[in-house]
Amino acid sequence: MKASSYKKKSMEIFEDIESDVRSYCRAFPTVFTKAENYTLQDVDGKEYVDFFAGAGALNYGHNNHKMKKKLIDYIMNNGITHSLDMATSAKAVFLEKFNEVILKPRKMNYKVMFPGPTGTNTVESALKLARKVTGRETIMSFTNAFHGMTLGSLSVTGNKFKRHGAGVPLNHSVFAPYDKYYGDKFDTINYIEKLIDGAATGITTPAAIILETVQGEGGINVAEFEWLRRISEVCKLREIILIIDDVQAGCGRTGTFFSFENTGIEPDIVCLSKSIGGYGLPMAITLIKPEIDIWKPGEHNGTFRGNNLAFITAVEALTYWENDDLHKDVMRHEETVKIFLDELVIKYPIIKGEVRGRGLMQGLSLGIEGFAEKVCKIAFEKGLIMETCGANKEVLKIMPPLTIDSVGLMKGLKVLESSVETCIKEIEELLLIQN
Amino acid sequence: MKASSYKKKSMEIFEDIESDVRSYCRAFPTVFTKAENYTLQDVDGKEYVDFFAGAGALNYGHNNHKMKKKLIDYIMNNGITHSLDMATSAKAVFLEKFNEVILKPRKMNYKVMFPGPTGTNTVESALKLARKVTGRETIMSFTNAFHGMTLGSLSVTGNKFKRHGAGVPLNHSVFAPYDKYYGDKFDTINYIEKLIDGAATGITTPAAIILETVQGEGGINVAEFEWLRRISEVCKLREIILIIDDVQAGCGRTGTFFSFENTGIEPDIVCLSKSIGGYGLPMAITLIKPEIDIWKPGEHNGTFRGNNLAFITAVEALTYWENDDLHKDVMRHEETVKIFLDELVIKYPIIKGEVRGRGLMQGLSLGIEGFAEKVCKIAFEKGLIMETCGANKEVLKIMPPLTIDSVGLMKGLKVLESSVETCIKEIEELLLIQN
Amino acid sequence: MKASSYKKKSMEIFEDIESDVRSYCRAFPTVFTKAENYTLQDVDGKEYVDFFAGAGALNYGHNNHKMKKKLIDYIMNNGITHSLDMATSAKAVFLEKFNEVILKPRKMNYKVMFPGPTGTNTVESALKLARKVTGRETIMSFTNAFHGMTLGSLSVTGNKFKRHGAGVPLNHSVFAPYDKYYGDKFDTINYIEKLIDGAATGITTPAAIILETVQGEGGINVAEFEWLRRISEVCKLREIILIIDDVQAGCGRTGTFFSFENTGIEPDIVCLSKSIGGYGLPMAITLIKPEIDIWKPGEHNGTFRGNNLAFITAVEALTYWENDDLHKDVMRHEETVKIFLDELVIKYPIIKGEVRGRGLMQGLSLGIEGFAEKVCKIAFEKGLIMETCGANKEVLKIMPPLTIDSVGLMKGLKVLESSVETCIKEIEELLLIQN
Amino acid sequence: MKASSYKKKSMEIFEDIESDVRSYCRAFPTVFTKAENYTLQDVDGKEYVDFFAGAGALNYGHNNHKMKKKLIDYIMNNGITHSLDMATSAKAVFLEKFNEVILKPRKMNYKVMFPGPTGTNTVESALKLARKVTGRETIMSFTNAFHGMTLGSLSVTGNKFKRHGAGVPLNHSVFAPYDKYYGDKFDTINYIEKLIDGAATGITTPAAIILETVQGEGGINVAEFEWLRRISEVCKLREIILIIDDVQAGCGRTGTFFSFENTGIEPDIVCLSKSIGGYGLPMAITLIKPEIDIWKPGEHNGTFRGNNLAFITAVEALTYWENDDLHKDVMRHEETVKIFLDELVIKYPIIKGEVRGRGLMQGLSLGIEGFAEKVCKIAFEKGLIMETCGANKEVLKIMPPLTIDSVGLMKGLKVLESSVETCIKEIEELLLIQN
Repeated sequence: MKASSYKKKSMEIFEDIESDVRSYCRAFPTVFTKAENYTLQDVDGKEYVDFFAGAGALNYGHNNHKMKKKLIDYIMNNGITHSLDMATSAKAVFLEKFNEVILKPRKMNYKVMFPGPTGTNTVESALKLARKVTGRETIMSFTNAFHGMTLGSLSVTGNKFKRHGAGVPLNHSVFAPYDKYYGDKFDTINYIEKLIDGAATGITTPAAIILETVQGEGGINVAEFEWLRRISEVCKLREIILIIDDVQAGCGRTGTFFSFENTGIEPDIVCLSKSIGGYGLPMAITLIKPEIDIWKPGEHNGTFRGNNLAFITAVEALTYWENDDLHKDVMRHEETVKIFLDELVIKYPIIKGEVRGRGLMQGLSLGIEGFAEKVCKIAFEKGLIMETCGANKEVLKIMPPLTIDSVGLMKGLKVLESSVETCIKEIEELLLIQN
Repeated sequence: MKASSYKKKSMEIFEDIESDVRSYCRAFPTVFTKAENYTLQDVDGKEYVDFFAGAGALNYGHNNHKMKKKLIDYIMNNGITHSLDMATSAKAVFLEKFNEVILKPRKMNYKVMFPGPTGTNTVESALKLARKVTGRETIMSFTNAFHGMTLGSLSVTGNKFKRHGAGVPLNHSVFAPYDKYYGDKFDTINYIEKLIDGAATGITTPAAIILETVQGEGGINVAEFEWLRRISEVCKLREIILIIDDVQAGCGRTGTFFSFENTGIEPDIVCLSKSIGGYGLPMAITLIKPEIDIWKPGEHNGTFRGNNLAFITAVEALTYWENDDLHKDVMRHEETVKIFLDELVIKYPIIKGEVRGRGLMQGLSLGIEGFAEKVCKIAFEKGLIMETCGANKEVLKIMPPLTIDSVGLMKGLKVLESSVETCIKEIEELLLIQN
Repeated sequence: MKASSYKKKSMEIFEDIESDVRSYCRAFPTVFTKAENYTLQDVDGKEYVDFFAGAGALNYGHNNHKMKKKLIDYIMNNGITHSLDMATSAKAVFLEKFNEVILKPRKMNYKVMFPGPTGTNTVESALKLARKVTGRETIMSFTNAFHGMTLGSLSVTGNKFKRHGAGVPLNHSVFAPYDKYYGDKFDTINYIEKLIDGAATGITTPAAIILETVQGEGGINVAEFEWLRRISEVCKLREIILIIDDVQAGCGRTGTFFSFENTGIEPDIVCLSKSIGGYGLPMAITLIKPEIDIWKPGEHNGTFRGNNLAFITAVEALTYWENDDLHKDVMRHEETVKIFLDELVIKYPIIKGEVRGRGLMQGLSLGIEGFAEKVCKIAFEKGLIMETCGANKEVLKIMPPLTIDSVGLMKGLKVLESSVETCIKEIEELLLIQN
Repeated sequence: MKASSYKKKSMEIFEDIESDVRSYCRAFPTVFTKAENYTLQDVDGKEYVDFFAGAGALNYGHNNHKMKKKLIDYIMNNGITHSLDMATSAKAVFLEKFNEVILKPRKMNYKVMFPGPTGTNTVESALKLARKVTGRETIMSFTNAFHGMTLGSLSVTGNKFKRHGAGVPLNHSVFAPYDKYYGDKFDTINYIEKLIDGAATGITTPAAIILETVQGEGGINVAEFEWLRRISEVCKLREIILIIDDVQAGCGRTGTFFSFENTGIEPDIVCLSKSIGGYGLPMAITLIKPEIDIWKPGEHNGTFRGNNLAFITAVEALTYWENDDLHKDVMRHEETVKIFLDELVIKYPIIKGEVRGRGLMQGLSLGIEGFAEKVCKIAFEKGLIMETCGANKEVLKIMPPLTIDSVGLMKGLKVLESSVETCIKEIEELLLIQN
């Protein structure tokens, strides 16, 4: 069968058999077959630059060579594949490596929990523990927050469409405005303090405050370090557990391993998933300050906590943090992207663009309704995988693998610009017709 | 470093770094390194027969040769590893194969949803959809039910210890007695009908009834087929969605691919995970009758829905269902186990044993408090991996890979018997001392 | 204006101005003007025998002469009318009298709380206190229970129509079958014990069990004394608060002041309202065992807790309990009613009647759908006020003032019989036409 | 017995028999016996000026002569006392009078519901109806709001101490800042609009917004008319039900019958209780726009909805609104109070006083912790009944009967000033000792 007819047939399979809930395959309507670092290939042999990186699960690129070798060796050698939370040598090596390469050099002291291999699982475990430790029920979360789709995580997620999907009222959470949500002049910390401390504000002191330092799904909203420090202070003074959901912003995405490294804050709980396994394999960990690791054995569990193939690739991924090469690459790429986007915004004032982000988690907010989605659609046709984010899908999300090289980065950025141009032309033609 | 000192050091790593929530590693206190089919090997080179099978995630055995080959080829060839819900060739092949080998021959018509790669994820997606379809909120669940540890799944899980871990009240669920929970004479269906239909019973018509045909964690409780048919009838007459949670009992565990195949019932939604990936890799699917597949795109999502390595091994696993060899093996092994356990119960009346189960999901309930746990502990020392289940951990759970051979099966059963004997002796000695 | 045209105009006022939620005025479509003991008079001068007694709020009859005198004296003398929970002489006299006449002779030791002057208020206060005392959240309630219409009370009320009115899910309650709800052979106590004690039944140990010894709205369902004792035992063994809602069955309705007097049980909390004020004036009290009276000042409050006019009439009402005349009257009347109804049931087998009740809280359950409502309608036309109860309005509720005399009682019963006869005839004619 | 020893004995009765929940009797430790208009008398014959007025339930004074006469006539004449929601002539007269005197002249069109005779009952009925009408669940309420103590009303009450009393999480409500809660510069309406409209703020469009135009318990916080109009606009644009809880601020307390009369807003539902009965007798009504009066008969009910004695006095109370004498009196008294308090604040800067309020609902906020409570205590000794309000009891609440005369008003105000002086002296002496 020829590739293109195979593609057609494959697409029909998804139409016929897969549930209507499927989503990304609608934005990127082709069948992918192979991938390497920042390049995806589809069934027709067409290549795409990847500015999406598995929504942050592929920080080290597709099919990273070093990890691949280790993975194959382990499989060939009949290493344990699935182990729930039994002790395995692969897990021991991961724990030790994580401690040596990540925690110790940063003078961090955390216990590591394996809560089930997904982001929502680590969040659910964090919420449970915070409630157990404090004996309180409410969790404070933020506008535009995204923490996952199971019922506990969804209750602290701000998006109405997603919340509505629950089919039941989502309780035991209270939402506060994220840094700058109500503009520069609104002091959100002052607001939060009064909300918590007021004797008649209708809320009780929360068990925890959970937040992303950079909101990914919510639109690449970046919290100021000062804001984070003040939130941390709010928590400390009231014995509120501070949970950093670093599922998307962690694992180097912002340039440092943890997104909060240079802020001076010390979260009580940290949620990691997505790129922690390195190779795109399902894995998640919850970091817990030893003094609040009061779990009883088995109080949270799950069948796939012990995905040993992910432990193997995760260990290899950690070698990237033994020196600061990757960190420097990210910083360099960040500058490239920012300069490029800033110029784009100036060049095309019609798009009402606004650049924001940290590291290789960059966003370009566009002030015309529906524009960002249109740009992504055209970019896909031109060979660039890129998604939108934000409550109204108004932000282009630029999130290539951290391992992308300058050539790949510029290639992608140029497709981006060209796609913007195409969209502008369409609009201008439309305006012309209307007039 | 010598193996034994390495083991000691590894164990310390877990003590030092892993959260106290870890659980199985306490029951099986060693470090596992390799595995093949029904055999596990630890760091000291000691071998164990596996009557546990990853809690049902390893129905096809550890590191299944056929799947391993396919897996390595795919990895070597830079096949897509991680894809969220983008279309990939690996996923297309899985969907087609699942349709051809499983659904069509059974005259089943379902849409396939990929809800995130864990059991609790498929359950959460099922509950959401049932609520969306019916516009109702309550889910009916059963005594001893286990459906997962995230907040939605936990709300329909019966176990109090696990529920308590939520830290918030778990609502929108109502519990009914499972088949024979109150003994043979209690007509639970009659009870349920009156509960739902009564004008003043305090509950509303549920959105869904969710159940396991054989309760795994709950103590290997087997529902009669007639009971299942009557439950199905209860649902149909009231437009209640029937959800079968086949996460543990499915994928051939009871001898047929689905645990409900010969009952005549047609669930509206089926939850599969654990062994659906074949190789122990995280994967889950939710099967949905086409007429209720009313999801909007992205209404439930998750980063690791597209674990393509699992799709590859899953396809290979499905070849086991192209003929009835495996089915026959399971039936044969079931008989072996049942006969062996029945004789054991007769031989040692002191243990007040009761045998129950379907296929290779067998349980031996023991009437002495703490006895089952002690048997497992000794069995481990003697080279058998086996866990307890039931609300009070009173049931030995015999759940080897379906691919075990007769030699392995008998080997394990003999260790089991010998462990029971040892325990009895200990008790008798204790009684002697007390008198 | 002539009475009848005045009636017509008055009825229109209700149609025009009163909310559609009004209910009893539809069953008894006239405008009442005066009342005395067991007789009501409407605007046309027509008299009605009252077998309804303000749904139990008029146990001592309408406009009881002795109370009326005291009431007028107090008002004339400018006695405090409204006092919240300030100390007033009227309240002091009530407390002392209640202690002397009711509590002490029965060797009961309770603190008296004034929770707001309605039944639902005393129930809400009881639920709050039980939760505060135990630190638990769930309240166990029963099929067919009715406890009130505010959100807390409604959550422990069984009726689906009423629950639906809440507009939000009603949580933190669990329903158990009331005595004989599932027939004589179903041991509900055994069921409840297993439900509470089972390790995997999905419920936590409740804070309280709340029940009516005779369910009024639920259909005059009478709990056996042995059943009540066993429930009490269930509570004691598990430190569950036992709340008796004696709002309808208390204040002499069953022959003794409390409905549970001869059962041997000692509730932790007792809810009284309806006839506690004696004259039909809004009043309620919550009796609390001193050891659990751990309220902080003002933790439950309300504007009309101090309805002093009701205290004045309540004191006079208590004089009825200084001797056993009223008790004997009720017992005598009970016999009259039971004999009459039993004969009725035998005489008219077509109605599939079943007599039940205690004291002057009697019910006649009728096995034909809609029959009871029709009887009430005709009885009204013939000069008898009587309502239905039960989840499907299938029970005639015979509940005259306790102060009714034999003449009045027989007069009402004869209207009842005559109304039944009329209804039977209508049915028979209908059947004749159909054949 | 001499009065004083009688007082002592009476106080002991409360200590011994009444629950510890009692509250006002601790602030006003005496036993009251008689009252007339604005004067209370205790058992020792001591007289008190009443600046409390039954927390707003005695707007027409204690034992109002005109009402008293009507009440006695009705009782003497055996008028119906208790009628649930049956039609009575007393109720018909009330409905007609309310329509003629209140609704029609104000061009208001409302159905009248009798929801049970307390403030919390009318609020619960309003919340139920708003949810039923909109099919939504969330109610938006405000910081410092007080709406009642049953579970539904408590869920929209801001005070943490009171909320904690529930013993269960209070859900389905969301709190917004009341006018000026965060100071003059914080645009709360803008905040609320963004909160409701934002696609990712974690809340759904509420069923209703419920508010007091002047927050009574919350500290005499006065909403600007412009703010009320903007809230009304917020509701209209989003089909949100606007509920005005006029339980305390209504019935003339602010000078007009409804507190919102001159604002231009038209609430969908209005809650009235406290002084609606006129004489301090329990009564409440819920006013409902005809187009949303979609109740089914009996969907909300209660035993004491038909307190006919209150209907009789309520009718008489309405005569006060047939001309504008009372309105003018209130306006005149308001000025007297404001001038007096303003001068007080200037005279004693140490108390950091702030005057606020509308009509005869005035507050004096004091900036020294515990000062307001101390002033009330001393005022009581000096013959003035006055309470504090505000989340921290920091506000003196001046709320005499509207029927007070100038002599009584000045008498009370002078006691107030003298009590403030005494307190200042105590503080100054304390400071002297400390230094």
